[in-house]
Amino acid sequence: MSNNSIGKAFALTCFGESHGKCVGAIIDGCPAGLPLSEKDIQRELDKRRPGVSRITTKRREEDIAEILSGVYKGLTTGAPICVMVLNRDVDSRPYELIKDKPRPGHADYPAHVRYGGFQDYRGGGQFSGRVTVAYTMAGAIAKKLLKKINAEVLAHTIQIGPIRLPKEVTYEEIRKNVYQNSVRCADLETANAMEAEVLKVAKEGDSLGGIVECTALGVPAGLGNPIFDSLDADLAKILFNIPAVKGVEFGAGFQAASFKGSENNDQFVMQENRVVTLTNNAGGILGGLSTGMPIVMRVAFKPTPSIALKQKTVDLIQERSVEIKLAGRHDPCIVPRAVPVVESCVAMVIVDHAIRLGIIPMVLK
Amino acid sequence: MSNNSIGKAFALTCFGESHGKCVGAIIDGCPAGLPLSEKDIQRELDKRRPGVSRITTKRREEDIAEILSGVYKGLTTGAPICVMVLNRDVDSRPYELIKDKPRPGHADYPAHVRYGGFQDYRGGGQFSGRVTVAYTMAGAIAKKLLKKINAEVLAHTIQIGPIRLPKEVTYEEIRKNVYQNSVRCADLETANAMEAEVLKVAKEGDSLGGIVECTALGVPAGLGNPIFDSLDADLAKILFNIPAVKGVEFGAGFQAASFKGSENNDQFVMQENRVVTLTNNAGGILGGLSTGMPIVMRVAFKPTPSIALKQKTVDLIQERSVEIKLAGRHDPCIVPRAVPVVESCVAMVIVDHAIRLGIIPMVLK
Amino acid sequence: MSNNSIGKAFALTCFGESHGKCVGAIIDGCPAGLPLSEKDIQRELDKRRPGVSRITTKRREEDIAEILSGVYKGLTTGAPICVMVLNRDVDSRPYELIKDKPRPGHADYPAHVRYGGFQDYRGGGQFSGRVTVAYTMAGAIAKKLLKKINAEVLAHTIQIGPIRLPKEVTYEEIRKNVYQNSVRCADLETANAMEAEVLKVAKEGDSLGGIVECTALGVPAGLGNPIFDSLDADLAKILFNIPAVKGVEFGAGFQAASFKGSENNDQFVMQENRVVTLTNNAGGILGGLSTGMPIVMRVAFKPTPSIALKQKTVDLIQERSVEIKLAGRHDPCIVPRAVPVVESCVAMVIVDHAIRLGIIPMVLK
Amino acid sequence: MSNNSIGKAFALTCFGESHGKCVGAIIDGCPAGLPLSEKDIQRELDKRRPGVSRITTKRREEDIAEILSGVYKGLTTGAPICVMVLNRDVDSRPYELIKDKPRPGHADYPAHVRYGGFQDYRGGGQFSGRVTVAYTMAGAIAKKLLKKINAEVLAHTIQIGPIRLPKEVTYEEIRKNVYQNSVRCADLETANAMEAEVLKVAKEGDSLGGIVECTALGVPAGLGNPIFDSLDADLAKILFNIPAVKGVEFGAGFQAASFKGSENNDQFVMQENRVVTLTNNAGGILGGLSTGMPIVMRVAFKPTPSIALKQKTVDLIQERSVEIKLAGRHDPCIVPRAVPVVESCVAMVIVDHAIRLGIIPMVLK
Repeated sequence: MSNNSIGKAFALTCFGESHGKCVGAIIDGCPAGLPLSEKDIQRELDKRRPGVSRITTKRREEDIAEILSGVYKGLTTGAPICVMVLNRDVDSRPYELIKDKPRPGHADYPAHVRYGGFQDYRGGGQFSGRVTVAYTMAGAIAKKLLKKINAEVLAHTIQIGPIRLPKEVTYEEIRKNVYQNSVRCADLETANAMEAEVLKVAKEGDSLGGIVECTALGVPAGLGNPIFDSLDADLAKILFNIPAVKGVEFGAGFQAASFKGSENNDQFVMQENRVVTLTNNAGGILGGLSTGMPIVMRVAFKPTPSIALKQKTVDLIQERSVEIKLAGRHDPCIVPRAVPVVESCVAMVIVDHAIRLGIIPMVLK
Repeated sequence: MSNNSIGKAFALTCFGESHGKCVGAIIDGCPAGLPLSEKDIQRELDKRRPGVSRITTKRREEDIAEILSGVYKGLTTGAPICVMVLNRDVDSRPYELIKDKPRPGHADYPAHVRYGGFQDYRGGGQFSGRVTVAYTMAGAIAKKLLKKINAEVLAHTIQIGPIRLPKEVTYEEIRKNVYQNSVRCADLETANAMEAEVLKVAKEGDSLGGIVECTALGVPAGLGNPIFDSLDADLAKILFNIPAVKGVEFGAGFQAASFKGSENNDQFVMQENRVVTLTNNAGGILGGLSTGMPIVMRVAFKPTPSIALKQKTVDLIQERSVEIKLAGRHDPCIVPRAVPVVESCVAMVIVDHAIRLGIIPMVLK
Repeated sequence: MSNNSIGKAFALTCFGESHGKCVGAIIDGCPAGLPLSEKDIQRELDKRRPGVSRITTKRREEDIAEILSGVYKGLTTGAPICVMVLNRDVDSRPYELIKDKPRPGHADYPAHVRYGGFQDYRGGGQFSGRVTVAYTMAGAIAKKLLKKINAEVLAHTIQIGPIRLPKEVTYEEIRKNVYQNSVRCADLETANAMEAEVLKVAKEGDSLGGIVECTALGVPAGLGNPIFDSLDADLAKILFNIPAVKGVEFGAGFQAASFKGSENNDQFVMQENRVVTLTNNAGGILGGLSTGMPIVMRVAFKPTPSIALKQKTVDLIQERSVEIKLAGRHDPCIVPRAVPVVESCVAMVIVDHAIRLGIIPMVLK
Repeated sequence: MSNNSIGKAFALTCFGESHGKCVGAIIDGCPAGLPLSEKDIQRELDKRRPGVSRITTKRREEDIAEILSGVYKGLTTGAPICVMVLNRDVDSRPYELIKDKPRPGHADYPAHVRYGGFQDYRGGGQFSGRVTVAYTMAGAIAKKLLKKINAEVLAHTIQIGPIRLPKEVTYEEIRKNVYQNSVRCADLETANAMEAEVLKVAKEGDSLGGIVECTALGVPAGLGNPIFDSLDADLAKILFNIPAVKGVEFGAGFQAASFKGSENNDQFVMQENRVVTLTNNAGGILGGLSTGMPIVMRVAFKPTPSIALKQKTVDLIQERSVEIKLAGRHDPCIVPRAVPVVESCVAMVIVDHAIRLGIIPMVLK
C-alpha cells in the first residue's frame, strides 16, 4: 500500500513537502554505467523553475539538485539514486490563517479528513505541486536513458484558457521553441497570445488552466502489456499523479468517440522495411502495447486553485460557512511549468517498460 | 512485473483468452462473511452479454459464472475467490486467414512483436474485450461490498458516434432506464437516436465509438492518497485497461482547461453538518483524495476496430502491403457493453481504497 | 496487500482449498515459445502425490492437471497460464466435529480469529498443505525454463525424525535415487532406516518431521539484489510459505555461527577461466547475489500436526478446555512429499530473478 | 522490481552506501499523529553504533539522525518520513587496492558481475552492513507504533562463536541487561565469556559469528496471511536482508525436525478467558498467522568476512589467482550490533501487518 512509489523496473519513490526541509526522489533500477552529474538533473529542474518569467510565481525556488547516492566516479552504480533539493525562500505565515479553512480547489479538506488534522498544511504539504520537483529529477535520468535507445519525449502547451494552438507544429519547432517562451508553446505567435491572456487574467486575481501535448518518438513496437500493466494505463496513472490534471487522452482521444471505425482505424503499410500506419489515431498504442508510431497524449490541467478573489469555504473547527481571500504568491497558470513534468513522467514510464523487456540493459557499456 | 493483477487490498488477477477454454478472475482481499452466490455474479455478467439486442454481436456468449474457491456455505471465507466462465460458441476459423496480417485498430501487430508470433491470435487472445468478463465478475463482488458502506456506482452511455445526450439526467433515471434499452443510455429518447445510428452504421459495415459517464455516490471523503496511489490515478489506470478506451477525465475534465480558477473552484459550504461544495468541477476528487461529493468521470471509447470494409494492412511474413476484409461477428458499437465494465472497474478501485483505510472491515458481521 | 501472489517477473497466484472444488495456479510472466503440455506438469505433480507408498496418507488424490489458459499449439503464448486440479476423494465429515475445537499445531485457531469464523475449516481450507499442488504446478514450468539456461534444482530428504543422512551424496545419486524410494532420500540405506522409523511412529498414532536439502546447480553469478530483493531473502520467503516449515538456512547456515571468519570465508581461485571458491559455506550466495557456485539450502519441517493421539484443546464457543482425538487420513510424515515442493519453490525464485536480468529472455526461440 | 523497498502498509525504502554521502530511509505508511523526534530515532541508532566498546570497529560513526520530511510540530503527518545520517570518518583508501580483488565472504565478486564493475566498491557500497542504519531508523518508528498496541520486541545474543547461552533468561533480564554489556547478551556471565572470546579471536586477526534470538511480545492472534504473505515468511525475508544472516528459524525451528508430533504440537488451554498454548514450539506462528503467544525466532550470523589474515582470491582484470591481506577497521564480531537491527526488522513486519488489518489505525489520537 506504499503510495509514494511508482514503477517496477525503474521505480521512483518521493518524499518531502512544500514548506518542509526538502523535496527528494529515490530512483531505483537505473542501469549501472550511465554518466550522471548534478548538471544533468539541474538542466531539467531549471525548466520547471518559477521566477523565470513574468507569468510565474514570485517565490524564488533556487532549486539546487544534490545527488546523495547511487553515483560514483560520475557513473551510476546500479544502487538507488537519491537526489534532493532543499526548500528555500519559504514563507509559511499565510497558511496559519487558513489552516482550518480549506481552500477551494485544493486538497486541504480531504487531507484534513484523511490525516485527522495532522497533515502539514503549509503550502499544501505533500499535496503541493512542488512534489513535481521529484518527478522532474527522476525524469532527467529517464531522459538520459531514452537517448541510449534513440527515443525522445517532446511536450508543449497547446492550450491556455481560451487560447488554443490553431495549427500543427513540427517536432523541430517543439525542440527549438518550447523553452524559448514563457508559456512553453512551440508556436511563437500562439505563445504570445497565451502569455497576454495569462497576464490579463492574473491582473484580475484569477487563474487559467490549459492542455499539454506530449509525444514520445522512437519508442520501439511491443512495449507494454495487455491487461493491467498496459503502456497507456501506466502513462495515465503517472500523469494523473501530477497535481491539477483532470483529463488524459491518447491519439484521437475523446474525438475518437465521434469517429466511425473506418475513420479511426490506422491502416498498416510497409515503409522501408518498417511496419507503419497511415494515420495515428491510436496515438502509438494498441492493446496496451506501443506500435512503433509516435506515442501521443494530451493532458488537461485545471486552473490554479489559488486565486486572489474572495471565495466561500467552511471553518472546520466551528463548522460554519465563512469566506476567505488567499494571500501568498501563486502562478496564475501552472501549465508552462507542467511541460517538463509531463515529459519526465512519460520518459519514466517508457524507460520502466523498456527495462522490463531488456531493451535497455541493466549494465550500460 | 506481473501484469495480470491490479489492486492492493482488493486485488484482481485475470486469466484466459477470447477463444481459449475460459476467462477467469481471482479476487483476493475480499472480506470474510459476505453473502455471495453465482447468481450475484451472473446478474452483473448478464448486463455485458452480447446477443441480447439487435445491435450487439451475434456470438452467443452464454457466460455462466462458476465460483471455484473462496466461498463456503454461501459466505466469503477471506480466501481468494476464483470465478470462471467457460468459452462457448467460439468460431476460430476466420482468424487463421489473418494471423500474419494484423487487423487495423487491433493489438495484433504489437502483440506479434512482443510475443514473437507465439501469441494466441484467435479473437485477439488475451487482448480481446472478452477479458472484461473477468472485470465484471470481480466488479459484482465489489458492488456488493460498496452496498455495505451505502455507496453505489452508476454508469451510462452519454455519447455514441455523433449522438450526444443533450441534457442532464437524474440518478433515478440512470438506475431505472440504463438496462432497459440496448445502448445503456439513461434518457430514452436519446437512446432511440443512438440505437438508430448504430443500426445505420452497422449496415454500412462500419462501427461507432462513444462515451460512458460514471458516477460513484456515497463515497466518504478522504479515500485515496497523495502522490502515486491517488484515487483518480488508480481509477484512470484501471479504466485505460478496458480495451478501446482512449480518454479519461474527471469532473470538468478537458473543459477545465478553458475555465478560470474562479469558475472552476468548487466553493465549500456547510449543509446539514456536512461539508459540501456548491459545484463539482473537481468530480469529487481533490489532491488524489475523495471529497465526499459524487465522483464523476467520463471514459471515451474508440469505435470497434473490426469492420466489414476493406482495409490496408501488411503481410508480416512476406513483408509487403496487402488488403484484408474481416469476416466474423462483431459488435458495431461496444460502448453499451462497456457500461457495466466501467461500473465494475470503478467499484473495485473504491473498494480497494476503502479496505486500505479500514472503512470496509476485513470481517463483515 | 494481495497475499496470494509471489514473484515479480515470474509470478505465481494461487487459489483453492483442501476440500473445495479445486486448487489452481496462475503463472504470469512465463516467456512465450516454451513447449508446455499437461504431461510436463503432471510429471512433477505425481512426485508429490500421496497414496504412492505405505507411508503417505490414504487419501487418493488423483490430481489431474488441466491447463486452462496461456498455451496455444503446445507452446506458451506469453499470456497468464492457469493450471488447475479438481479435488476428488474428499471426505469432510471429520471436520464438522472439530470446527470449533482448533487442532493443536494447525492454523485453525489463528484462522478463526483472522476470519471471524467464516474460514473454510474443512481439511484446513486454504491453510492446507494441499495448496502446494499449486506451487508444484508452477514449479514444473519453472524447471523447464531453468533447463534453457542449463540450471537444475535437486532436493532430497536428509533427515526424518532422529534419522539423519550420515554422509555426503553426489548429485548423480540425488538424480538417480530420490524418486526411487518412499522417503525421497538420495542414500538408499538411509532411506530404508527413515522409512522404518516412519512406519514405527505411524503405528503409535504419532508423526515425524525432517529436513530437506536443496541444491541449485548452474545458476550464473550475479542473480539477485542487494538490500531487499536479495536472492536468499526471496528464497527464504517462498520456502516459509510451504506449510510446516520452521527453519531455513543457506550453506553452513546455523553452523556458521560457530565458525571463525578464516574457517567460514570461501576463498576464490581461478578454475578453467572461471572464478570459483574452494569451499561453499556461503551456499552460493553473497550479499544477496548468486556467486556461480551451487546454491545450497536446508529446510526444516515440523512433524505433521495431525496425530491420532488424544490432545488438549479449547472449545471456542463454550470457551473451555476440552480434549480431541483426530480421525481422518494423514501423512505420518509430510517431508517426502515436500521434496518436489521445495524444488518447485527454488526453481520459481531463480527463474524470477533470471528473467528480471534478461538471462532468460521474454521470447524463446 | 524495485529492490530497495519492503513492506506494504508500512514500507521502508533505503538509499545510500557505506562510503557515499549518507545512508537514509523513507518510511511510508506511518499513521498520522505519532509523536516523533530525532531523539526517538537517535536512541535506537546509538544501540547499533560501533566505537562504544572494545570489541567493535574503531571507525567512529557519529551517526546523527536528521528527519527531513513527514513530521510537523513534533507529530507524524501521514506523509513519507525521510530520515538520514551523513557518513563521517570514512577512509576509502584501503579499498582502492582491492577493487579488482574480491574479498572472500563479501559481495564484491557477484556485485562485480551484476553491475559490470560500476558498483561503488568502497566499504562494500550498498552491500555494506552500514545499510542497517536505515533499518534501525525505520525500526525506531515501528517500535513506537508497537507501544500503541502494547507490543514489544526483545532481542539478544544467545551465541557467539563457541560460547552459547547455557540457560533460559527472563524477559526482564533481556530488558535490563542487553544494552549493559558489549555483546548484547541478557545473561551477564555469558556476556563476559563471549566478550573474552571475541577479544581473543580479534587478536588472532580473525572473527566470529553468532546467533541472535528475538521475541515479540503482545502481538495479537490473527496477524499475517496464509499462502504468500505469511507472517513468518515476511519476517524471514526481512531478516535475510540483514547482511551476514545465514539462517532463520521460528520456535523449535530445526529442532522440530527431530520431534514427534505429540512432542511438537502446542496444546491449547483456556487461561483467564484467553486461548493459550502449554508450550510454544510453534514460536507464536501457525499457518502464517500469529497465535497470540510470543513470536520467537533465532537468526544465525556468519563471522565477519573481513579478517586480517592472508586469503586467496582472484585478480578479476588479470584473471589469475592472487593473495590479499585486508587493512581497514572491522568488527571482529558484528553480532552485538545486529541485535537492535533484528529488533527493528521484526518490529517493522509486525507493524506492517497490524496496519493492514486495522489493528493500528491510520490516524492516532
